[in-house]
Amino acid sequence: MHDLRRRIFLRNFVIVGHGTDADGDFTLNDLCGGAGRLDVLLRCVSSAFFLSHGIRQDVGLFLVFPKGPKTIRFCASEMRYVNPDERSTGALVRNALLKKLDGPGEKQSSPGIHVSTKSFEDTVKELPNLMWLVENGDPWPSAVECDVTFVLSDHHDFTLDEEAVLHKLKARRVSLGPTSLHSNHCITLAHYLLDGSQTGV
Amino acid sequence: MHDLRRRIFLRNFVIVGHGTDADGDFTLNDLCGGAGRLDVLLRCVSSAFFLSHGIRQDVGLFLVFPKGPKTIRFCASEMRYVNPDERSTGALVRNALLKKLDGPGEKQSSPGIHVSTKSFEDTVKELPNLMWLVENGDPWPSAVECDVTFVLSDHHDFTLDEEAVLHKLKARRVSLGPTSLHSNHCITLAHYLLDGSQTGV
Repeated sequence: MHDLRRRIFLRNFVIVGHGTDADGDFTLNDLCGGAGRLDVLLRCVSSAFFLSHGIRQDVGLFLVFPKGPKTIRFCASEMRYVNPDERSTGALVRNALLKKLDGPGEKQSSPGIHVSTKSFEDTVKELPNLMWLVENGDPWPSAVECDVTFVLSDHHDFTLDEEAVLHKLKARRVSLGPTSLHSNHCITLAHYLLDGSQTGV
Repeated sequence: MHDLRRRIFLRNFVIVGHGTDADGDFTLNDLCGGAGRLDVLLRCVSSAFFLSHGIRQDVGLFLVFPKGPKTIRFCASEMRYVNPDERSTGALVRNALLKKLDGPGEKQSSPGIHVSTKSFEDTVKELPNLMWLVENGDPWPSAVECDVTFVLSDHHDFTLDEEAVLHKLKARRVSLGPTSLHSNHCITLAHYLLDGSQTGV
C-alpha cells in the first residue's frame, strides 16, 4: 500500500532578478546598488533553505537573470558553504556568474550551485505545478500534496513576455493575502503553510 | 461607540544579540564573523519593518546587546535611511553603538534610531503583553486584539537569567509550530498571522 506519510514533496522557487547584470562584475560591498538589487535575491536564498539548525533538503531554487540570460540552480542536497547572510551568498552567486559557459549545459561553480544560459522560459517549462504568487490570486489551497514550483519576481513586476510564458504554461495564480510582501517573506510564508498542510513532510 | 476597526495595535519585537560586542568596533565586511552574528539581528530589522512598497508604521523594534548592556530602539514613524539589506542597516547599528552615552537616557543616532544603556530586563519590563516564541509553547492565539511584544533570541538560546526575567514578567510562551525557525522568519510569520486576525489593522 502506498504510504503518503513517507512521500517528500519538492518545493521549487524561481526568482527573476531583472536588475542584475549577469556577468558577475560587481562588488560585494554594494549588493543593493551596483549589483542591481541582488540583495533581494540573496534574501530569497536564505528564506528558501534555512531552518534554525539546518537546511531544508526538499528545496530547489533557481535565480534567473534575464539580462544574460543565465540561471543559477541551487540544490539543497549537494550544497556546501552556503550561509544565511547576504554577503557570503552574494560571493557564491558572483562566482557562478563569472563561470565561463561555452555551451548550453550547466556548469557547477561550487557544490550544489550550477549555472547555465537558460532563460526564464527554459527554466520554468521544466518545473512542475507552477504557482504564480500575486496579491489578487486565488486563495491559498488547503492542501498541496504534490511537487510544486513558486514563481516570484524581484522588486520589479514580471515583464509582459514573462507573464505570457506563465499564462502559456498555465501557472496557477495564488495569493498569500492582500498585502504586497517582499519575495523572501513570501517564501517564508509558503514554507510555513506547506509545513502545516503536507502530510508527506 | 468605540469602533474596533479604527484601532491600530502596536507590534513590538525584542531581539537579543548575545554574540555582538556593544562597542561598534567591527567592519561591515564581516557582519556574521567579527561582528558576532550581527547579520541575524539585521535580518530581523528587515522582516519587522518592510513591506513590498513601504514600511509598517505599527512596529517598534528593540535590539538588545547584553555585552554592553545596550539597547537600540527603532521607531517606524520617525525612521529615515533604513533599507532592507543587511549592510546598510549594519552601518546604522554600528553608528548607534559608537554613540557616546554619558547617562541613563536614550540618544538618537539617526532618525528613528535611539540607543541607551538599558539591559534586557530594563527594556522588556516597560513593554506590553510579552510573548515568548518557543517551539513547544501554547498554540498561536486565534485573535490578538491588543498591543503585543514578541521576545526572540539570536542563534543562541536565552540565558537562564533572561528566562528568569521572562518568567517574572509572566511572558506567555507561544508557538509557531514544531519546526525551529530563524528569528527573522518568526517575525514574518507573526506579522502574517496578526494581519489575518487583527480587525484594527
